[in-house]
Amino acid sequence: MAQEGTKGKPISCKAAVVWEPNKMVIETIEVAPPSRGEVRVRILYTGVCHTDAVTLGGIDAQGVYPVVLGHEGGGIVESVGESVESVVPGDHVIPLYIPQCGDCDYCDSDKTNLCQKLVKTQYAGFMPDATTRFTCKGKPIHHYMGCSTFSEYTVCSEISLAKIDPKAPLEKVCLLGCGISTGYGAALNTAKVERDSICGVWGCGAVGLATIMGCKKAGAKKIIAIDINSNKKEYALKFGATEFVNPKDFTKPENDTFIEMTGGGFDFTFEAVGNVTLMRQALETAHKGWGVSVIIGVAPAGQEISTRSFQLVTGRVWKGTAFGGWKSRDSVPMLVDEYMKGKLMVDEFITHKLPFEEIHKSFDLLHKGESLRTVLTL
Amino acid sequence: MAQEGTKGKPISCKAAVVWEPNKMVIETIEVAPPSRGEVRVRILYTGVCHTDAVTLGGIDAQGVYPVVLGHEGGGIVESVGESVESVVPGDHVIPLYIPQCGDCDYCDSDKTNLCQKLVKTQYAGFMPDATTRFTCKGKPIHHYMGCSTFSEYTVCSEISLAKIDPKAPLEKVCLLGCGISTGYGAALNTAKVERDSICGVWGCGAVGLATIMGCKKAGAKKIIAIDINSNKKEYALKFGATEFVNPKDFTKPENDTFIEMTGGGFDFTFEAVGNVTLMRQALETAHKGWGVSVIIGVAPAGQEISTRSFQLVTGRVWKGTAFGGWKSRDSVPMLVDEYMKGKLMVDEFITHKLPFEEIHKSFDLLHKGESLRTVLTL
Repeated sequence: MAQEGTKGKPISCKAAVVWEPNKMVIETIEVAPPSRGEVRVRILYTGVCHTDAVTLGGIDAQGVYPVVLGHEGGGIVESVGESVESVVPGDHVIPLYIPQCGDCDYCDSDKTNLCQKLVKTQYAGFMPDATTRFTCKGKPIHHYMGCSTFSEYTVCSEISLAKIDPKAPLEKVCLLGCGISTGYGAALNTAKVERDSICGVWGCGAVGLATIMGCKKAGAKKIIAIDINSNKKEYALKFGATEFVNPKDFTKPENDTFIEMTGGGFDFTFEAVGNVTLMRQALETAHKGWGVSVIIGVAPAGQEISTRSFQLVTGRVWKGTAFGGWKSRDSVPMLVDEYMKGKLMVDEFITHKLPFEEIHKSFDLLHKGESLRTVLTL
Repeated sequence: MAQEGTKGKPISCKAAVVWEPNKMVIETIEVAPPSRGEVRVRILYTGVCHTDAVTLGGIDAQGVYPVVLGHEGGGIVESVGESVESVVPGDHVIPLYIPQCGDCDYCDSDKTNLCQKLVKTQYAGFMPDATTRFTCKGKPIHHYMGCSTFSEYTVCSEISLAKIDPKAPLEKVCLLGCGISTGYGAALNTAKVERDSICGVWGCGAVGLATIMGCKKAGAKKIIAIDINSNKKEYALKFGATEFVNPKDFTKPENDTFIEMTGGGFDFTFEAVGNVTLMRQALETAHKGWGVSVIIGVAPAGQEISTRSFQLVTGRVWKGTAFGGWKSRDSVPMLVDEYMKGKLMVDEFITHKLPFEEIHKSFDLLHKGESLRTVLTL
């Protein structure tokens, strides 16, 4: 699929276009050359994440259509626009849905990774100049989360690309573009899990399992994995859980059971499902006085979290995380290195590999809870 | 009122007995001698706090009656029970509604001040042996928050008493038993307000004003005091607010106005009213990425706080505080010293002084928002 002499010219290639909710079709699209500050990337591999499914399904309040989804990709720089200095053609890169411009208030702060440089255009489905680089059948097609990795070629802002070790297998480390980094960082950066602590993780999908891996890395002494699908037990233990529980098996009220099995509550809890009832449970089973509860999952549009204020007044802390708190351009290359040194599991998340043409099947596997991650080859 | 040779004998004295919600009567009660680990204290002065009003009014879900209220007192040890070593008759003390036993998991942790040693009996209105030391007309009368300072004599656990500098004026420093310490510590201990930060404080009662004082102490560059009673402006500025706003004067939606006037949101917010709508507003006007919102107020029974989880996922942190996070026995004597050195305002909170017999008037002043604190002389 590599094309010769494409610099400065549009490229025709295959992409999965979502014309409207639940209508995704593989089409031939035109990808315009990168504008100033932009980079065109040949995507070789992409993971498929629940967030893609949410937008595909039309239950994302911010969804815009038609659009090319995908935000867990790995690729090689094809060409760069004017002023781009940090990457050159041939560099291996991972697109980032949270950029790192390096000079906004957020990038300056050591408390957040939420660079706001692109936020207005990115969430409207545009490049920073408020236009798109994708066209199909004469119609402009929106970008997605600044990544759009369900396309053989995509265009990203320079500040939305992490340049990584070219020796790293892109078919694996593409997953560091979202799920794994998010869960791992939720434990290490957002909660700052402590040695010998007791942790609870709701949801044993890729994000939850990566959270468990982060809790283990931090030295937690007890990591309880919680899922209503008991088939997840094996995975949970593999990634570091010391115990797996299915709340459907409980004989007493769930919160009481959790508080009893932890001797008073969890030191750190994580909601990696996206269910507001579980977000409340994760907060309320955190230990009085010091329990920290981190929301990782994305709740359905319109739903709210709630609790009695007494839960906070008695010392619990309620937080959330996006991309695990990692400053993206600085951290993803570092996470890739950690993987290359054998200190971070990535391969173990890949349960399925499919050709790009079978993208619909990858969503089916996700919805059925049969896959952790499917990696598509473009 | 001092009685000679009372050690080991019951003392008859005056106390305000709440027989049932909204029925408080000054009665003669009998105060039994202190049991093992207990101390009998001659209360000389007491503040009147909103929490007393909540229980008096019967809207405290945990309220038990009949009861002697009051938890902002100052007094002198009359006699001590067996095993008591840390205070002797004549010591000046402030009763503490959160004890500090020094050997529970909570006392051992540097993350919390919520000693749990007495929690079961205290909130049921009893001394640790599950009985009471108060009797009136032959009926046992409950204790309140381990303090019951609306009585000439009370009995407290040894671990519920802070021994303070006898040179400190008890008619002033009694207020360090609750409101002032709570607000001041919310800023310094719970939020850990930072130099040059922007703070918002909802509610300019004693607790909110003490919070403002804490924000100032921490070096905040902008402290916006918020109250729907514009008469509070003068107090707010006196305690360190750089600005006072009355949301009734806003011409645009409140949250938008706050976010605009702070250039993106507050670094630290505090709810010192006890209103769940304001708790939500304080969270949602905290700055994306790093804003910390602290709940100090006590919400009415049955009401819950809520927000979209997105507010936390985008970096806001929701916390709460009880007694400002101070480890009580260690900290109250230190706060008294800070006051004695002129580094902490206390006198400025006292707007009214009344004899104990006019206790009903002190509640009227509180409900009308006319007083910050009334100190009653017993």
